[in-house]
Amino acid sequence: MVKPDWIAVDWGTSRLRAWAMAADGAVLAEGSSADGMGALDPDGFEPALMRLVGGWLPDTGAPVPVVACGMVGARQGWREVPYRPVPCAPLGGGMAVTTADPRLSVRILPGLSQATPPDVMRGEETQIAGLLSHMADFDGVICLPGTHTKWAQVSAGEVVSFQTFLTGEMFDLLATRSVLRHSVGGGALDRAAFAGAVTDAMTAPQKLAARLFAIRAAGLLEGLPEAEARGRLSGLLIGLELAGAKPYWLGQNVAVIGAPDLAGLYAEALKGAGVTVAVLEATSMTLAGLGAARRGRGDA
Amino acid sequence: MVKPDWIAVDWGTSRLRAWAMAADGAVLAEGSSADGMGALDPDGFEPALMRLVGGWLPDTGAPVPVVACGMVGARQGWREVPYRPVPCAPLGGGMAVTTADPRLSVRILPGLSQATPPDVMRGEETQIAGLLSHMADFDGVICLPGTHTKWAQVSAGEVVSFQTFLTGEMFDLLATRSVLRHSVGGGALDRAAFAGAVTDAMTAPQKLAARLFAIRAAGLLEGLPEAEARGRLSGLLIGLELAGAKPYWLGQNVAVIGAPDLAGLYAEALKGAGVTVAVLEATSMTLAGLGAARRGRGDA
Repeated sequence: MVKPDWIAVDWGTSRLRAWAMAADGAVLAEGSSADGMGALDPDGFEPALMRLVGGWLPDTGAPVPVVACGMVGARQGWREVPYRPVPCAPLGGGMAVTTADPRLSVRILPGLSQATPPDVMRGEETQIAGLLSHMADFDGVICLPGTHTKWAQVSAGEVVSFQTFLTGEMFDLLATRSVLRHSVGGGALDRAAFAGAVTDAMTAPQKLAARLFAIRAAGLLEGLPEAEARGRLSGLLIGLELAGAKPYWLGQNVAVIGAPDLAGLYAEALKGAGVTVAVLEATSMTLAGLGAARRGRGDA
Repeated sequence: MVKPDWIAVDWGTSRLRAWAMAADGAVLAEGSSADGMGALDPDGFEPALMRLVGGWLPDTGAPVPVVACGMVGARQGWREVPYRPVPCAPLGGGMAVTTADPRLSVRILPGLSQATPPDVMRGEETQIAGLLSHMADFDGVICLPGTHTKWAQVSAGEVVSFQTFLTGEMFDLLATRSVLRHSVGGGALDRAAFAGAVTDAMTAPQKLAARLFAIRAAGLLEGLPEAEARGRLSGLLIGLELAGAKPYWLGQNVAVIGAPDLAGLYAEALKGAGVTVAVLEATSMTLAGLGAARRGRGDA
C-alpha cells in the first residue's frame, strides 16, 4: 500500500507523469499516461489525474499535496497560471486548483516569460530549479533539448534570459511527415554522419533546406543508408541550433538537461565545438525541482 | 465534341492534370483530379488517366499521343523512366508505356539528375524547356518555387547545374502540423511582415529555429495577428532559401516560374535583395514544354 507524503506531477502537451513521493524524496511509485494537456478538455484533468494517482490516496485524513508543472498551467490547460517574467528565480508561487475529490490539494507551478525577444516556457523552469537545488551556485548556461529546446542563462539563482528553438518539432515533422520519411527510417542514427552534418550546418546554416533535400537525393541516387540519413537530418538541425545559440554557449559553463539519448547528441555536438558540458537526466531534475517547490524554496 | 491532336499531362505526387490540345497549341479542354502518383498503385495509372481523358478519345482511328511529365516516371510511378544526368538539354527521349486501351499512345518524359551534389527533378525540366521554347537564347538562372523549390543554371540550351530546397514542404508542415498552426491561420499573409522576415533570415540564417518559435511566443504574449505570423513564417523560410541560393542568383539574369502568388513572393524577396526577375506562369510553361516534347524538339 503506497502512502505518499506528496505527489509530483509533470503534465506536458502529450504525456502525464506522476510520482508518489516519500517525505525524504524517495519515489514510492510512479505512473504515466497519454492524457497530455493537448488531449483533455478543462473538466477532463481531474479524472485523468485520478486514474493515475487515485490508488495512492488514503480514505481519510488531510488531503495529499500535489505539485504539478508543465502545460497543465497553459491557457488550454486545467487552469491558466500566468507566466512570471524573467529575470526571476525559476520557482515562485503557483496556483491552487479546486478539486471535486477532497483528498487532493493541487498546486500548479507557473512558467516563465520574456518580453524581448518574446519567449515562454512551461516545465523547463522546474528542471532548472532542480539543477539549482543540487548546485546552488551554478552560474552559466542550461540547455534543455526537447520538442522546443530551451537555452537559459542562469546567474545568482535567477533565470536572466532564455531562447527557444523549434528544433525537436522540426525533426519529428521532417522524419515522419516529409519526403525524408522514405529515407531516414525509424532506427538508430550514424554518429559520424551526425557529426559531419553538425559541422556542415554550423559552417553554412543558410544551406539547410538544400541539405535536407540532398538527403533524399542521396537516398535515390546513391542508396544512402537509413542510419546515415537519420544522422544527417539530426545533425543539420542541431548544428543549425548551435550556430544560432552561439551567443549562449560561447565561452560559458554549460549544462544539458534532457533525455539521455538526446542530451548525449547535444553534448557530442557541443564537444565538437570545443565546449565541455555536464549532462543531467531530465526526470531527476524535474523531481528535484518539484521537490524544491513542495518545500517552498524559491517561492515568492 | 473535343477532338484533340494530342493530350498533355502533368502528373505530380498529389495531382493529375490533363489538357486536350489542338495542333496549333490551343487548349480545347482540361481536367484535373486527386489521382496523384502518391495515391496510385502501378495498375491504377491507366484507369486514373482514362477517368480524365476517356471522353476525349475517338472510337476509331490512330491512337492519340499522350505526353506526360512529373512523378509519373518515378520508381513508384506508372513506369520508372531513368533520370538524364546534367549537363544536358532539359528534354530528351522519354519512354513509351503500353496501355490496355489501344486508343492511347503514352510517352513519359524523364527527369534530370545531378551527381555532385546529388539532386533530382521530375517535371521542372519540362517547365524549363517551356521557357526555352519562348526564349531560346536564355542564359541565366531559373527559380521554380513549389513543394521542393528548384534553382537551375541554364546556358546554351542546357541545364548546367541545379539545386533543390525543401522550403515549400517545410512551410506546409510548420503551418499546418506544428505548434505554429495555432498562430498563422490559413488566410492571406502580411507583406511587410514577410519582407522583414526575409531580411532577418538572410542576415542571420542560423536563427531560424529560434525565430520560428518566436512567432508562437509573440502570438501568446503580444497577440500577433495571424496575417503577420503567416508573413513571418513564409519570409523566414524564403529568406533562408535565398541566402542559401545566393551563388545561383547573385549578379545573374533570373526568371521565376511558378504559381502566381508564390512566384510573386519570390520576386518580391529577390527584388529586396537587388535582383530584378521575370515571372512566368507555371502551367503555361508546362504546356509549352510538353508541346516542345510533342514536336520532338530537344529530343535525344
